[in-house]
Amino acid sequence: MEGDTIHDLTLLNSPAVDDISHLALDIGGSLIKMVYFSTSREKSVDKTQNKCSKDNLVTGRLYFLKFETSKINECLDFISSKQLHCRGVQHYGFPASDKNTIKATGGGAFKFADLFKEKLGISLDKVEEMGSLVSGANFLIKSVPSEAFTYVNGQRNYEQIDHNDLYPYLLVNIGSGVSMIKVDGDGKFERVSGTSVGGGTFWGLGKLLTKCKSFDDLLEMSHQGNNRVIDMLVGDIYGGMDYLKIGLTSTAIASSFGKAVSDNKELEEYRPEDVARSLLRMISNNIGQIAYLNALRFGLKKIFFGGFFIRGHAYTMDTISVAVDFWSKGEAKAMFLRHEGFLGALGAFMNYQLVEEFPCGARDNNQNPLVEDLKDNGIIECCLRASN
Amino acid sequence: MEGDTIHDLTLLNSPAVDDISHLALDIGGSLIKMVYFSTSREKSVDKTQNKCSKDNLVTGRLYFLKFETSKINECLDFISSKQLHCRGVQHYGFPASDKNTIKATGGGAFKFADLFKEKLGISLDKVEEMGSLVSGANFLIKSVPSEAFTYVNGQRNYEQIDHNDLYPYLLVNIGSGVSMIKVDGDGKFERVSGTSVGGGTFWGLGKLLTKCKSFDDLLEMSHQGNNRVIDMLVGDIYGGMDYLKIGLTSTAIASSFGKAVSDNKELEEYRPEDVARSLLRMISNNIGQIAYLNALRFGLKKIFFGGFFIRGHAYTMDTISVAVDFWSKGEAKAMFLRHEGFLGALGAFMNYQLVEEFPCGARDNNQNPLVEDLKDNGIIECCLRASN
Repeated sequence: MEGDTIHDLTLLNSPAVDDISHLALDIGGSLIKMVYFSTSREKSVDKTQNKCSKDNLVTGRLYFLKFETSKINECLDFISSKQLHCRGVQHYGFPASDKNTIKATGGGAFKFADLFKEKLGISLDKVEEMGSLVSGANFLIKSVPSEAFTYVNGQRNYEQIDHNDLYPYLLVNIGSGVSMIKVDGDGKFERVSGTSVGGGTFWGLGKLLTKCKSFDDLLEMSHQGNNRVIDMLVGDIYGGMDYLKIGLTSTAIASSFGKAVSDNKELEEYRPEDVARSLLRMISNNIGQIAYLNALRFGLKKIFFGGFFIRGHAYTMDTISVAVDFWSKGEAKAMFLRHEGFLGALGAFMNYQLVEEFPCGARDNNQNPLVEDLKDNGIIECCLRASN
Repeated sequence: MEGDTIHDLTLLNSPAVDDISHLALDIGGSLIKMVYFSTSREKSVDKTQNKCSKDNLVTGRLYFLKFETSKINECLDFISSKQLHCRGVQHYGFPASDKNTIKATGGGAFKFADLFKEKLGISLDKVEEMGSLVSGANFLIKSVPSEAFTYVNGQRNYEQIDHNDLYPYLLVNIGSGVSMIKVDGDGKFERVSGTSVGGGTFWGLGKLLTKCKSFDDLLEMSHQGNNRVIDMLVGDIYGGMDYLKIGLTSTAIASSFGKAVSDNKELEEYRPEDVARSLLRMISNNIGQIAYLNALRFGLKKIFFGGFFIRGHAYTMDTISVAVDFWSKGEAKAMFLRHEGFLGALGAFMNYQLVEEFPCGARDNNQNPLVEDLKDNGIIECCLRASN
């Protein structure tokens, strides 16, 4: 595991109860992603210092948390412990009409609406899922410094995205399943494809095959594994030779898990690390290929990959990057986002329409002075409009 | 398992030793496919009746056999028992120069060349793999009656293919891995895509997950299974609701194997039938989708699916057909071939250049009087040129 640990932000780092307002949720098939805003910087800071220079703007930070959907009670307990369910958004003159209502997206916003009402008295204001992903991605790409990067030869290369040259792009969100969305502008998008072979497949199949304890456990195992033990390579079929006529080297994977056909081995005789590696490579490569084919279809050169599957994992990003590069012959570019797992939750948060994305005529610059990324742990500093 | 049992032709049905000539092999990563020609019809038939009406043509039949590549000795024993290794192609005035040389394609033609030489004294005359698949497919589509069919609502609909409207088409060969070939004419083709998620993945992963004894065992299990036990459906995420805004019904698969993430179940607690079904659906659907995206890319309306993965299995064909129909919104059509598993072997056989494909100026008709399909067991009747 490499990269930033923005997903493992613990409650220890979270702000004091009194300073939290505005909570948004993305309740997916496997994970609940949460974004909330807090004015707390340091306990000793005078509240007046939290004001932005412009009137009616409140400076604060966006915090990110996740829970497993199957353990939704942990999420409810967290909201309850922070008293978010009875505090609404009444601080700093935010309109009171939203009290006891929180923005939520993902299928769980429908599935668990009654549960939130019953346990916490909270109504979920449902925000459409694809729209949330898109507005979350647009916000991150345009407003948060050092957000987007390519991954080449084990290196992150942060990219300064020119706002005038951002659209159109393909957004590939790898959650339990995968959605591929052609984004043409703010609020202008179309879900053009998807695949059921996604993060839930990696985690679900991985759990069955390796008895891993968690998604991170499975990712960590894959890092230690060697996929050539189980994958059938071109060289395995061709007696060690390349098949260059069709552009396949001897080390290219001809058939994922193909060696298990003829090995007289039970599942238990394979190292779980090798199984995890083959699985990760199969799924990452497949997503990269389908993404590329869709980008090609619409002439899109930029593909942004988001969703909780990636988790800043080096090998995942490397496989996706290589797949896009291989299939596109270098024409298309895979890009990643530091807050990849929170696109939907951020999009739901944006739906409060309080974030001052481009204040003070900053839209034409490639820098938003009122949104800052505090690199260490993924927390984002930003300004909210306190009242109209 | 439904459909014709052309793959399970046993030695009991095969012709007497003396009447066999011309053998071609396709040695893949998982299976060896064999085609051979025999003049034997019934034992009592006068040999002179085997002559076609045209001079120098010998009527006979093409027989089809398969072996597992990991049990290659069974293949060598068969060739040895039939004395094919020392009989060459000397019957009926076939040129003697090919004695002790047989046409072979697939990676195993390279990998096992020394083994054939050493054990049987046979040289393998290597025929390029993609070219073999294409010439095998072209032969079947153009020359064998009732070869190509669509599969809709559990029904095979045999299609009369107009030779003048055949090209271009996409050939998807699902072996251990998958090759996708754009075919523009006889000998005119390009491998445009492929995926490592193929038959070897189904069989290999299936073996690890279900302890199945064979590929057929795994297919049979999948027939008895229910994928909804393990797959996460749209309705599972959305609380039973459709997500119609993006065209997904509640029963669409959101994440293959996604339910295994939150089920607190070990692999052994799932029915192997359900696991096999989810796996088959995942792989068939994925291949159908990637095939469609490639067909779209080149404006191809016809997609022929071949390779041993399919095996006339109803659910496999149904899933592939539905995937192509779904993604193409009805624009593209999935077609299947009765001799699907033998494209490469047939192509290698065609490389002997003895099959009289279009004698007597029959090329412009959609019927070849000298090639007949004996529907019962997949044996194909055809004429070979005995000498020049």
